[in-house]
Amino acid sequence: MPKKNSAHKITRHMLEQDSFSKWLGVNIVEAEPGRSVLRIRIRDEMVNGFGVTHGGVTFALADSALAFAAGSHGRVSLALDNKITFVKPVNTGDSITAIAEEEHRGRQIAVYNVTVKNQNNTVVALMRGTVYRTNREFSF
Amino acid sequence: MPKKNSAHKITRHMLEQDSFSKWLGVNIVEAEPGRSVLRIRIRDEMVNGFGVTHGGVTFALADSALAFAAGSHGRVSLALDNKITFVKPVNTGDSITAIAEEEHRGRQIAVYNVTVKNQNNTVVALMRGTVYRTNREFSF
Amino acid sequence: MPKKNSAHKITRHMLEQDSFSKWLGVNIVEAEPGRSVLRIRIRDEMVNGFGVTHGGVTFALADSALAFAAGSHGRVSLALDNKITFVKPVNTGDSITAIAEEEHRGRQIAVYNVTVKNQNNTVVALMRGTVYRTNREFSF
Amino acid sequence: MPKKNSAHKITRHMLEQDSFSKWLGVNIVEAEPGRSVLRIRIRDEMVNGFGVTHGGVTFALADSALAFAAGSHGRVSLALDNKITFVKPVNTGDSITAIAEEEHRGRQIAVYNVTVKNQNNTVVALMRGTVYRTNREFSF
Repeated sequence: MPKKNSAHKITRHMLEQDSFSKWLGVNIVEAEPGRSVLRIRIRDEMVNGFGVTHGGVTFALADSALAFAAGSHGRVSLALDNKITFVKPVNTGDSITAIAEEEHRGRQIAVYNVTVKNQNNTVVALMRGTVYRTNREFSF
Repeated sequence: MPKKNSAHKITRHMLEQDSFSKWLGVNIVEAEPGRSVLRIRIRDEMVNGFGVTHGGVTFALADSALAFAAGSHGRVSLALDNKITFVKPVNTGDSITAIAEEEHRGRQIAVYNVTVKNQNNTVVALMRGTVYRTNREFSF
Repeated sequence: MPKKNSAHKITRHMLEQDSFSKWLGVNIVEAEPGRSVLRIRIRDEMVNGFGVTHGGVTFALADSALAFAAGSHGRVSLALDNKITFVKPVNTGDSITAIAEEEHRGRQIAVYNVTVKNQNNTVVALMRGTVYRTNREFSF
Repeated sequence: MPKKNSAHKITRHMLEQDSFSKWLGVNIVEAEPGRSVLRIRIRDEMVNGFGVTHGGVTFALADSALAFAAGSHGRVSLALDNKITFVKPVNTGDSITAIAEEEHRGRQIAVYNVTVKNQNNTVVALMRGTVYRTNREFSF
């Protein structure tokens, strides 16, 4: 199977099994080896007390994109460590897109950068995360 | 009003207004100036495709605790930057507690450390975050 | 004065005043508004007990690039928070280059990404940092 | 050999081999399994253009403390990822102490928190880092 199709198949499989990403309403925009682009629309139940999207929602979207990009090669990968920087507020009704890109992939450690943009293509958050690559392959 | 009562009142107010924290099922365990302890029970809809709690859920609980600890002094504070380190998986049915503690509070910048533990008192995640303290006071 | 020349002038000025960057042997490769590219050659006294470059040296080069990029607009900026991810060892005799790029610049907060590469154009470290922009202008 | 003596012996060995830590003038204050306390005095050549200690110097001290704490168990450990938060400026002549403490130690991953204080016991920087534990033992 071509690698790109395989990445798409793994990403769809990961999303189908992922209850919280489904609750978020994640749509797969792109799925390639080492790359994942996901989008959600912000609902009223996703905001905090300041009327802006809870940091946990933005983080969760970025984290799913990172996990799908890391998993796209077929190996189960575990998040070690993520840093997120919030640069603009996100409001109810906004549509936000997380673009996860592989920056390094070693035998056991890989690093991903995730840019989160709103519907006006403005960056709202930046994340970088490190994963530990297990020896387990996805089975499905 | 004594500072401790004020911190509790602000924390309760922040939680009441915070739709996503309510969706998470956040319980306030402690609320003091510069300190917030919050607890949730993990539901089936909070897990990812590996059957463990989505990183976004653990992050969100820690982020709410951080926000409530930062807000406890009465000033609206905005998250700039958080790093979370995941050390143990969290499962459905687990009860996790986030303990946010102030490590530094300057005029405009404050820093919080958040330790997340499960029901067996085992550390599952560690977060540190920086906030920008605005000049706005909470009004309610 | 054109902005690009101004950025170069500020960068040169910052380097001249910066004793530790001079000890590192920093060379300015590029200086533009919001962008700084710096290079050093690793000397014997910069390595740790494993015979590879001390993380503090790689960090310091990236941090100087970040500081010069942040300062290039003429406002004194203070580092709040940096995360560095180490992906490849750096050896004595290697030449490493830090490329700092502005990802966000608000009124008081700005965010920079720094990629550190060796002489073979291989990424050795990745940093992202947040600065607080004071109201003070550089004077010289 | 008692574990505490062994930790001290490994720490002394790591420092002896570590050219950059020696350039920094590192003194070992404490060395125990999973814990390292190091101190340096800030010299003129360690400051940046603002007349305050270069972030790379503070980071380097914290990074050495983290590395020594991680190495204290006898296994060679490699830094993956560190975040440092700067909270107070450090000046020439100041004496700063980094206290590295183990927060988690798994089979392959361990996490350390490092608090850096000045001679007045004021916190100047906070770091948290993740290391990968190789299977190699220190030999000396």
